[in-house]
Amino acid sequence: MQINERVECLRNQMKKAGLDAFLINGTDPHQSEYVSPRWHTRRWISGFTGSAGTVIVTQKEALIWVDSRYFVQCADQIKDTVFEMRKIDGPEASSPIDFLQKNFSKNKKVGIAEETLMLSEKEEYQKKGINIQATEDLLDYIWKDRPQMPDYPVEKMDDDLCGLSASQKIEEIRKLGHQNNEDYHLISSLTDIAWILNLRGADVEDTPVFLSYLLIGPGDVKLFTPKSRFKNVKPDCYSVHSYEDVTVELSKLSNVTVRLDPEKTNMKLASALEKANGVKISRGRDFSSDLKAVKNAAELEGMRVAHILDGVAMVNFLSQVKSGEYDFTEVTIAEALAQERELEEDYLGPSFSTIAGFGAHGAVVHYSATEETDIPITGNGLLVLDSGGQYSCGTTDITRTILFGKATREQKEDYTLVLKGHLALSSQIFPKGTSGHQLDVLAHQFLWQRGMNYFHGTGHGVGFRLSVHEGPQRISAKAEKGEPVALKPGMVLSDEPGIYKEGKHGIRIENLVAVTEAQTTEFGQFYTFEVLTCCPYERGLIVKSMLTADEKRMIDEYHQWVRDMLIDMVDEEAKSYLIEATKPL
Amino acid sequence: MQINERVECLRNQMKKAGLDAFLINGTDPHQSEYVSPRWHTRRWISGFTGSAGTVIVTQKEALIWVDSRYFVQCADQIKDTVFEMRKIDGPEASSPIDFLQKNFSKNKKVGIAEETLMLSEKEEYQKKGINIQATEDLLDYIWKDRPQMPDYPVEKMDDDLCGLSASQKIEEIRKLGHQNNEDYHLISSLTDIAWILNLRGADVEDTPVFLSYLLIGPGDVKLFTPKSRFKNVKPDCYSVHSYEDVTVELSKLSNVTVRLDPEKTNMKLASALEKANGVKISRGRDFSSDLKAVKNAAELEGMRVAHILDGVAMVNFLSQVKSGEYDFTEVTIAEALAQERELEEDYLGPSFSTIAGFGAHGAVVHYSATEETDIPITGNGLLVLDSGGQYSCGTTDITRTILFGKATREQKEDYTLVLKGHLALSSQIFPKGTSGHQLDVLAHQFLWQRGMNYFHGTGHGVGFRLSVHEGPQRISAKAEKGEPVALKPGMVLSDEPGIYKEGKHGIRIENLVAVTEAQTTEFGQFYTFEVLTCCPYERGLIVKSMLTADEKRMIDEYHQWVRDMLIDMVDEEAKSYLIEATKPL
Repeated sequence: MQINERVECLRNQMKKAGLDAFLINGTDPHQSEYVSPRWHTRRWISGFTGSAGTVIVTQKEALIWVDSRYFVQCADQIKDTVFEMRKIDGPEASSPIDFLQKNFSKNKKVGIAEETLMLSEKEEYQKKGINIQATEDLLDYIWKDRPQMPDYPVEKMDDDLCGLSASQKIEEIRKLGHQNNEDYHLISSLTDIAWILNLRGADVEDTPVFLSYLLIGPGDVKLFTPKSRFKNVKPDCYSVHSYEDVTVELSKLSNVTVRLDPEKTNMKLASALEKANGVKISRGRDFSSDLKAVKNAAELEGMRVAHILDGVAMVNFLSQVKSGEYDFTEVTIAEALAQERELEEDYLGPSFSTIAGFGAHGAVVHYSATEETDIPITGNGLLVLDSGGQYSCGTTDITRTILFGKATREQKEDYTLVLKGHLALSSQIFPKGTSGHQLDVLAHQFLWQRGMNYFHGTGHGVGFRLSVHEGPQRISAKAEKGEPVALKPGMVLSDEPGIYKEGKHGIRIENLVAVTEAQTTEFGQFYTFEVLTCCPYERGLIVKSMLTADEKRMIDEYHQWVRDMLIDMVDEEAKSYLIEATKPL
Repeated sequence: MQINERVECLRNQMKKAGLDAFLINGTDPHQSEYVSPRWHTRRWISGFTGSAGTVIVTQKEALIWVDSRYFVQCADQIKDTVFEMRKIDGPEASSPIDFLQKNFSKNKKVGIAEETLMLSEKEEYQKKGINIQATEDLLDYIWKDRPQMPDYPVEKMDDDLCGLSASQKIEEIRKLGHQNNEDYHLISSLTDIAWILNLRGADVEDTPVFLSYLLIGPGDVKLFTPKSRFKNVKPDCYSVHSYEDVTVELSKLSNVTVRLDPEKTNMKLASALEKANGVKISRGRDFSSDLKAVKNAAELEGMRVAHILDGVAMVNFLSQVKSGEYDFTEVTIAEALAQERELEEDYLGPSFSTIAGFGAHGAVVHYSATEETDIPITGNGLLVLDSGGQYSCGTTDITRTILFGKATREQKEDYTLVLKGHLALSSQIFPKGTSGHQLDVLAHQFLWQRGMNYFHGTGHGVGFRLSVHEGPQRISAKAEKGEPVALKPGMVLSDEPGIYKEGKHGIRIENLVAVTEAQTTEFGQFYTFEVLTCCPYERGLIVKSMLTADEKRMIDEYHQWVRDMLIDMVDEEAKSYLIEATKPL
């Protein structure tokens, strides 16, 4: 069935359902960042394969809103269809919600699959006067070979590796809920459920989660997910119920208070609660989000080990690359790195799709090399290589900018400015209560001083063998919407400033860091960062005269540590590279 | 009448009015930072003379909440009365609102003079379940010699000096209101009214405002303030009505939308609007607050001139102090500086009460030297001297830390760390859209690195011949409650990091700076700061080895500028001091 046919079928379904417009946001019922194939709805209806975008189909129009990373790709992928592209950023920006407000408010009905509309989103539409209807998923009627709900087996992680058992985590959540007079906790976030139960899944690429809901009550814990996942794992402190039964169970609740996160709870569940007898909804971030953000000692130790293993793979890989003996393209260099990681016994797979952008491709922040865009890595140029691994004991995410051939003065200066910011951030000591937003300028300052800037976040939270993007903590020039999240010892974040010059080059330097205690003085408690990532910087791009004595000392000390940690673990052939790459500046 | 009698009289009035508790917050009807004597209500009822605190009188208790700066003073001033002190910070902290919530919610009535209860505060009390009643001011019945409403004459500022006429400013406000579908603007903020009308008053010490309300309508502008103020000034684009008539006029409004700032509009006015026929209230910061925060070219030029004049006074004063020929105490040194300022023809008076704290007194952030606390300035020690002037063309605010005798290594290092932060902030280039909260860490970073901290704001906005504390812009480690305020060219702020070591010494370095355009690049528009304050730093406290080459260059360039600007203007006797104080490090 072609795209245009699909749109026509949808329009017929819309007529039957009495809807004037239908919205497809491409999310799953859990507001996951990465979704399993059943939820590739945006891709199925439009043909657009990018990772973000919103589709609105009306009887007359078929529109898709995408951001600037996807203008070219989307225009190309929809060119022979009824779809028209709209831009959500740049000078011609518009937004789906404004479109609906202008054209489909008042007596018009806008439908959306109830499982993909979050409670907080519904309220935003309503605030704008849009009559949003959380309906069945109309795609179910027309997408004949729609992938089934996945039911890959779950894996039980060792409690010792996790630091706490599932029952200990559940008790902690109950205690926090008790202080808030909350009886039940309805958890929809897949990373939260995996973390609480010390389980990992395989439903989604790169992020080891499994589709499910979790309902923690005062006396029992119910997990809603296909029972077939538990062939090899025995559920311990929870009972397993079918995924679909969650609404049945919620409807049975009576005269209790249920805590839920309105940004992560879909309308199918919210409606079931609203219909239940005397159920009071208490809104708030899942307690587990804050608990899992602060890694315990066992998790931190696992993260450290994972980073050493990742450092070994990176150094073995870099020594090959720097030997000049091999010809690479963007695609094959990513494969070469993957092969090195795969040699590690504890390696489970990538934590996200590798970004390998050479030359001008390095300036495309979310570049993804494909067969069509792939270029050979030859001559002079910089390669931005952003990758990470899932290990049995943790998650890594590292970016190194690698020099091929000779660098221009501009490239070296740019690299050095990025490096100075990267170091200023990770070496800062700061008082308890400080947020990432407050520290962000430390990474930006040297670039700003020269009229340069980067527009992505400086740091994202990272999960423990879970999602590579896992908040609530972050380091960003953008202010948080609500209460700022204070950095706490045990939180893991990235430190990744960059600079992107269109048509020329891109530079990004990324380490993962863990917040750690620094000292307590008459002025209170102070924290700082422990660097987890273990891999040399690109010394061929450092302009020494732009560094202060302190900065030189920091780089030398870091390199000394990298060498000490890795020298006995890397391949024999990589040792001379490692020694060379880590000698004092 | 003694304090205890006053409290008894108030209790009798409370009984008559059927109130269980009465709240006296010591503010005026305009939520002014500094209030005129008629509104020294907290002082009259309790005897406590500090600048902040909240009184609650019940039939059984008489309580006053103060912050840590006033624990000693307040305890002393209330010791022979029925009042009991409560602390709003520190380990024994409690708050008036929590006290009321606990003891006076449900069927109890809490009264407060309606003119001193702001609309937003009322809602906060109500949210906590407190039955707050905006009543008449019960003090009017018992405070026999209560000062009258002041009616000092107003002064008209030259439109050229102000850059815009009152009618131009009013047109701008109307235009902004029009875009928001707002018909009327009710303005209660005294600095806003003075700024809009290019008028200045004398009701309040140090801040040239006059008590009034302003109602800007589509066709007319009404100023509510005693007509007797206008003996020497002819009102131009507005009519003058008595202060009390504001509620009458508001009641007459019908079927219009009125914009007001709920944090600055008292319940007397808000109630009048609520009772008016079909009046819709539109909540938002007064447009004038944002307009006046961004100084126009004429205002900026005036501010520059005021700072040069202030620099002349400061240098003449410092040369006396540094000559070692005079014996000073904290009180007399402040007077000596005031005398130098008074020699300037354009000087009108102080912009706030001078803080002069020597030795351990320097560590008391809000220290105010009185006859009782005054100490001679002799031997070795640091003097924190924070002062400012109102000039006919602008407002100044400067802090210098002055060395007497010899400094310890610790004092020098502390001074240098504060200076490094002060310089890092004022020399930073930053993109359009950046808030002061984002930049704050630049001033704190070097202290934090050594486990030190200061807890006051880094920078406050400053008015144009108006209040020395005038937002909405600010630079602070504390996140703003609502939308962060972006720094815009023309905004004037202080840059004043410090360090305070109890029982030892205090250090603060403060310049005023104006946001100014730096450059526009492919990455967007960038701003930076122009330093307005013109006065040498204390070179006897600078540890050169702790400075980078850039920092040395910044200090030398600043000192060169100070010398060039002032050398022909200072007293003959001050020239050698100026030359010595500004030579390259």
